[in-house]
Amino acid sequence: MNTAPIIRICLTPALYPIYRDDNSIVVVVDIFRATSAICTALHHGMTGVIPVAAIEEAKNYPSNGYIVAAERGGEVVDGFAYGNSPLSYINNPDVIGKKLVLTTTNGTQAISAAKDAAALCVGAFSNITALSSWLITQQKDVMILCAGWKNRLNLEDTIFAGALTRLLLNQGFILDIDSDAALTALTLYEQSKENIDRFLEPSSHRQRLSKLNLEKDIEYCLQWDTTTVVPVLMHGELINIQK
Amino acid sequence: MNTAPIIRICLTPALYPIYRDDNSIVVVVDIFRATSAICTALHHGMTGVIPVAAIEEAKNYPSNGYIVAAERGGEVVDGFAYGNSPLSYINNPDVIGKKLVLTTTNGTQAISAAKDAAALCVGAFSNITALSSWLITQQKDVMILCAGWKNRLNLEDTIFAGALTRLLLNQGFILDIDSDAALTALTLYEQSKENIDRFLEPSSHRQRLSKLNLEKDIEYCLQWDTTTVVPVLMHGELINIQK
Repeated sequence: MNTAPIIRICLTPALYPIYRDDNSIVVVVDIFRATSAICTALHHGMTGVIPVAAIEEAKNYPSNGYIVAAERGGEVVDGFAYGNSPLSYINNPDVIGKKLVLTTTNGTQAISAAKDAAALCVGAFSNITALSSWLITQQKDVMILCAGWKNRLNLEDTIFAGALTRLLLNQGFILDIDSDAALTALTLYEQSKENIDRFLEPSSHRQRLSKLNLEKDIEYCLQWDTTTVVPVLMHGELINIQK
Repeated sequence: MNTAPIIRICLTPALYPIYRDDNSIVVVVDIFRATSAICTALHHGMTGVIPVAAIEEAKNYPSNGYIVAAERGGEVVDGFAYGNSPLSYINNPDVIGKKLVLTTTNGTQAISAAKDAAALCVGAFSNITALSSWLITQQKDVMILCAGWKNRLNLEDTIFAGALTRLLLNQGFILDIDSDAALTALTLYEQSKENIDRFLEPSSHRQRLSKLNLEKDIEYCLQWDTTTVVPVLMHGELINIQK
C-alpha cells in the first residue's frame, strides 16, 4: 500500500470546488503580492495577519494595535495607508508588534475559499524552502491553491506551484492520479527556473505591475528564501509557526 | 489602432463563464476523443453530427438515418453500439450518408456550454491546418475552449490549444491582454511538440485510455492533418463547411 502524501494543484479559485479536498493542507499562493507580503510582514516583526475578503470588514478594525491594508486591482485602496506591497513592511517601526488586517484582489479571497481545509498555510518564493520543510514534517496530502487573477490562472502562481511540487516530489510526495494541472505547473517551472522574471515578461500581471511602477516589488517577490516563516491560519489569523 | 484578431484560451469548461466572449468564434477541443471523432465521422461520409449533452436525449433519435453514440468515462454506454472512438467511423459502410448523434463525457458538454457563441467549430490534431486556415479567412477573435476532463484541465487539449495558437500567431493574430492561459498552452506545446505521445505518458487521460486498451485511438488522435474538414455548428448540427 502506498501511503506517500499526495500533491494536488488548483490553478484558480474558480476551480477550487472541483479540486477541493478538505483533508489536505492547503497552501495558498499569490506571488504578486499578497502571500509574499504576508511572509514579509511576519518576518519583519508583525505578530499576525488577519486576512479578510471585504474592504468594509477591514475598516471595522481599530487603528490601535492593527495595521489595516487594502489592495484592489494592484493599487492601495483610497483611504488606506497600506496595500499589499511587501516592501512597506520591511524595517518599518510603525508595524512592528502589530497585527496586519489585509484584504486584496485575489490572495485573501483564495484564503477565504479554503478556510475549511484541514490546515491552511501561505506560500511564496520568499519562504519556499521553509514551507516545503514544514510540509515534509507534516506528511499529509497537500493542495496548492493558486490565487490567480480574478479567477483566471496566472503564470507566476503556477510557476511557484511547480517549484514547490518539485521540492516535495524530491522528498517522497507523489502526484494525484488526475495530475495534469501539476504536470502543467512542473513544465512551466522547468522552463522558467533559470530566469523567472524574464519568463514572466509577457505575462498579464507582470505587465500590470510594471505599469504601476512596481518593479522593485516584482524583484523582491521573485527572490527565494528571504525568510523562514511559515504562516498557518489559526482561528482566522495567520501566525508564524516556524520559529 | 490594432485590429488584429485576438486569441483567447479557456482551459476547462468550468472557467468558461469567466473567459466567455460571445463575439468570438469558439473552437471546442476534446482530443481524446470527441472532437477527433467528429472530424473523422464527417471526413468518412457522415453528413452531420448532432452533439447532445444527455444520454436520454440521444436515445430519442430514431435508428433510421441516425447513428446514435454515447460515451461516459472513456467507455461506450450500455445499450449503444457506438462511442467516441474515431476508428469506428472509418471506412464503415453502416455510417456513410447518416447523421451522428453524439453524447460524451466532456466534449459535447463543452459544445453545449458555448452554443451561444458567434460561431462554434470543432478542432482536433486531425484538422488543425484546415481549421487554422479557415479561422484566418474569418479574421474574427478566437476562443479556444478545452473540454478537459470533468471540468479539470488536461494536457492534450491544452497542448492542442498551444499548437493552434502558434499557427494563428504566425498569421497575424495576437494574444489577449490577460494571456497567461495562452502562454501556458504555448509553453506546453513547445515542450511537447517533438513527441506529444511521449510527453503525455504521465497524463491522467492518456493513462485512463491505455487501461481501456485504446492505444490505437490515442495514436490516431495525435496524427496531424488526416482531414481537411472544418465542422461548424449550424442549427444544432455540426456540418463540414470546408469542401
